Amino acid sequence: MSETQSYPKWQQRLHEVIFEADTRAGKRFDVLLIFCILLSVVVVMLESVASIRSQYGQALYIAEWGFTILFTIEYILRLVCVGKPIRYAVSFYGIVDLLAILPTYLDLIFPGSHYLLVIRVLRVLRVFRVLKLVQYLSEARLLVMAIRASRRKVTVFLVAVLTMVVILGSLMYVVEGEENGFTSIPRSIYWAIVTLTTVGYGDITPKTELGQIFSSFVMILGYGILAVPTGIVTVELNNAARHVSTQACPECSEEGHDPDAIHCKYCGAKL
Amino acid sequence: MSETQSYPKWQQRLHEVIFEADTRAGKRFDVLLIFCILLSVVVVMLESVASIRSQYGQALYIAEWGFTILFTIEYILRLVCVGKPIRYAVSFYGIVDLLAILPTYLDLIFPGSHYLLVIRVLRVLRVFRVLKLVQYLSEARLLVMAIRASRRKVTVFLVAVLTMVVILGSLMYVVEGEENGFTSIPRSIYWAIVTLTTVGYGDITPKTELGQIFSSFVMILGYGILAVPTGIVTVELNNAARHVSTQACPECSEEGHDPDAIHCKYCGAKL
Amino acid sequence: MSETQSYPKWQQRLHEVIFEADTRAGKRFDVLLIFCILLSVVVVMLESVASIRSQYGQALYIAEWGFTILFTIEYILRLVCVGKPIRYAVSFYGIVDLLAILPTYLDLIFPGSHYLLVIRVLRVLRVFRVLKLVQYLSEARLLVMAIRASRRKVTVFLVAVLTMVVILGSLMYVVEGEENGFTSIPRSIYWAIVTLTTVGYGDITPKTELGQIFSSFVMILGYGILAVPTGIVTVELNNAARHVSTQACPECSEEGHDPDAIHCKYCGAKL
Amino acid sequence: MSETQSYPKWQQRLHEVIFEADTRAGKRFDVLLIFCILLSVVVVMLESVASIRSQYGQALYIAEWGFTILFTIEYILRLVCVGKPIRYAVSFYGIVDLLAILPTYLDLIFPGSHYLLVIRVLRVLRVFRVLKLVQYLSEARLLVMAIRASRRKVTVFLVAVLTMVVILGSLMYVVEGEENGFTSIPRSIYWAIVTLTTVGYGDITPKTELGQIFSSFVMILGYGILAVPTGIVTVELNNAARHVSTQACPECSEEGHDPDAIHCKYCGAKL
Repeated sequence: MSETQSYPKWQQRLHEVIFEADTRAGKRFDVLLIFCILLSVVVVMLESVASIRSQYGQALYIAEWGFTILFTIEYILRLVCVGKPIRYAVSFYGIVDLLAILPTYLDLIFPGSHYLLVIRVLRVLRVFRVLKLVQYLSEARLLVMAIRASRRKVTVFLVAVLTMVVILGSLMYVVEGEENGFTSIPRSIYWAIVTLTTVGYGDITPKTELGQIFSSFVMILGYGILAVPTGIVTVELNNAARHVSTQACPECSEEGHDPDAIHCKYCGAKL
Repeated sequence: MSETQSYPKWQQRLHEVIFEADTRAGKRFDVLLIFCILLSVVVVMLESVASIRSQYGQALYIAEWGFTILFTIEYILRLVCVGKPIRYAVSFYGIVDLLAILPTYLDLIFPGSHYLLVIRVLRVLRVFRVLKLVQYLSEARLLVMAIRASRRKVTVFLVAVLTMVVILGSLMYVVEGEENGFTSIPRSIYWAIVTLTTVGYGDITPKTELGQIFSSFVMILGYGILAVPTGIVTVELNNAARHVSTQACPECSEEGHDPDAIHCKYCGAKL
Repeated sequence: MSETQSYPKWQQRLHEVIFEADTRAGKRFDVLLIFCILLSVVVVMLESVASIRSQYGQALYIAEWGFTILFTIEYILRLVCVGKPIRYAVSFYGIVDLLAILPTYLDLIFPGSHYLLVIRVLRVLRVFRVLKLVQYLSEARLLVMAIRASRRKVTVFLVAVLTMVVILGSLMYVVEGEENGFTSIPRSIYWAIVTLTTVGYGDITPKTELGQIFSSFVMILGYGILAVPTGIVTVELNNAARHVSTQACPECSEEGHDPDAIHCKYCGAKL
Repeated sequence: MSETQSYPKWQQRLHEVIFEADTRAGKRFDVLLIFCILLSVVVVMLESVASIRSQYGQALYIAEWGFTILFTIEYILRLVCVGKPIRYAVSFYGIVDLLAILPTYLDLIFPGSHYLLVIRVLRVLRVFRVLKLVQYLSEARLLVMAIRASRRKVTVFLVAVLTMVVILGSLMYVVEGEENGFTSIPRSIYWAIVTLTTVGYGDITPKTELGQIFSSFVMILGYGILAVPTGIVTVELNNAARHVSTQACPECSEEGHDPDAIHCKYCGAKL
């Protein structure tokens, strides 16, 4: 990074340790950091269990503040040593790093908000970048590509599904009525979503014959609808996989060769 | 539209504002309309919540009548300014526009039917056409194409599934009997559908050992069956995507060639 | 059918009416038959509803015997007029036709078995053949081909899943124990199937922390496993669709042409 | 096996019977063994049913020890007659064979652990190898290949899902609170997994309006997410099937050509 070379020596060194993972110190720092993050998430989780809280509440409270102060110092150091602090602060990881310390301070004003600390778990995603899991990263990129390519189709599908659950839910409200647990249209829409997605909690179920016939129809509909997003993602994944592994033949310019191809499968020229 | 040019000026102007979205007034009208529709659907939903109804019932009742009168005027204006009123009245949007105002009037005769007003939500689908979301429309067309192409396969599949649930439900009625909640064959068929679609409410569950073994069989069957509609839609989506995404023949301009085609499959010209 | 030409005239005529659907009388007979079958299935279903049985039990009982006698006569006539009675009797439809009348007679010995009459619904599948729904038949053949082609893969998959549920169920029995509803290994295996197939009735649920962690693992496993049969069927459907629409080029013998292709996409020759 | 030829005659004969299935004695031994394994698993299962245990507990206890002693002798014989005992002992089947006898002995120290005997069911997987079900084996290999090829993509997907359920679960804990059954973050994460996988037991369900809205969001998310592993496996299965099913090159004998290939992609020779 040429831009950091004009910065003082200590700042360069700090940047190397905190932001990079090529040096031994940098790698050690990252592994330690990920360990701390996981530990602090476990602390928050344990603190939410009543029996553990009543016994170790004090210790967990101290641990939580300890981790928060540690991460606060780390966040300030990141801002100090990076070349463009604003750019880091508004980047994905910059925002996550901030969100990972805010809840503890907010808890002083709004009790209970410190449980949002679990957002720290997002910081662990750094593990892929840090440990240079290149192949995993390229697979992740493929998945993201496929999901992005199917974005518009999925949006159209979601609008159709939302329209459907509003209508199905309201019909069910009229069919079953308030005496059978369908106490309002929003609640009936909630039932429609629970049914259409095949989750089926069973907290609201049809009691009348007509309601059960109507439910059966909704379930079979949900069955068919389930196929659509799967189909979309499968096709896009297939396309993404094909685009990644494609090179054109230097002679006949044909594409569509397998990643392990040495010769063009159409004209036989060397690839 | 050449046919509207022979109509009086005010009618042409009205048509432009109400039906089209190219002019500024037309766009503004459509956005306002969609906003009104969404608001009126929210009013119907809120009215169905007992606690809100008891407090704001009067206001919501007035709002509902206000929206209905507004939409009635709009419906009449549409009939007046369009070139072929009958054709509009029997089109998809014409019917939806009518269904979106009828329930309020019907409610005077059959109390409770005004909840069907939520069908208004279908009018919101206009948003795609109005806001010229061309790409979304073409994606939607692709989805519709795939679903239409798999229509016959899905029908065959549905007939097979319906035959299956009738037989499975009746067998379960004989196995479990009325004392375990399987009080009739229709109710047992409802159970079979709940199980086969993996919804699994849990309102009717097998109690006997034989019933649980039989249920396990039905579940694993449902597991395998779930794969069929997904497979059908995926294959058709793949076909639809291929047909849309390819190049035109330089001679006959036909589209729909495979990515590996060298000659046009219709006229034989080199691609 | 040349073999029936040596039979007496009345037998030929009967065969035409009962077995074929090309003549007007034959078509009328088949439509009437399907109507009777559906009606008789509805009668059996209604008879199972306690409130209807107590009121119309007598009438439904008579109707059931009426239909059974009708179908018995039809079955005997089929045996009489067909060229090779044994071959018909052991064919799929022959067995279904017999099973569709037996339960009423069996009910005299084993009360309750008459509910098995719903197997009559299988006779309705004739509708596709009778009404000459050729395209539906070819789609059905495609589905059957795909399912048959994936038979072995699905068997391997099922053996793996069955092995899995036996082990997962037993582990859960040890983890949760009899005091939490997991009263025996078979019942725990039933729980494992309910969970792995994502049906999730909720009649048996983990109560201990360890049990919930283990369940979470089973659910995520089921999530991944759900993908396998879907993948198998999708690939086979894709293959089946390709094989059906394939013809070889008369010049270069290449295959893989689209069903609407007129020229070979590789050499440009007429197909 | 050339290495066993230097061993004494009785050892060779024993190896033939126990390890191989080509001779009549070897096949008979294997079929008998599989029968014993299945029987012993049924004994363990029956023993776990309270009503059966109270009546036949003594007999089942004896049967269990009988099978364990039998399998212990078999395990020792395997170690004795095989060429490289250590290599067998650490192989998959060697470990399973050991695990299939240990629990009975462990039960003397830790009561209840004998239920782990069901792991014996894994030994039955030998049936494919023993009965020379070659085609099933090749299908199984295809499935394993597809699953192995999608390993990395599925890992990335699983990490994303685990991160998601931690955050969704914690948010739900804050939204619903301990008074509605979401008594701790781990329990809320359990709820998130139950919901996201569409299992939906219904043992913990949202009670507040905000909770139901949030749940609806989680369900629709789960709906979309369900598509990803299915897409991954389908694409990989498709690739695996293509690689296996194609012709060999006449010059370099390489396989794995696309169905539309004209030249070998490895050496360029005409196919």
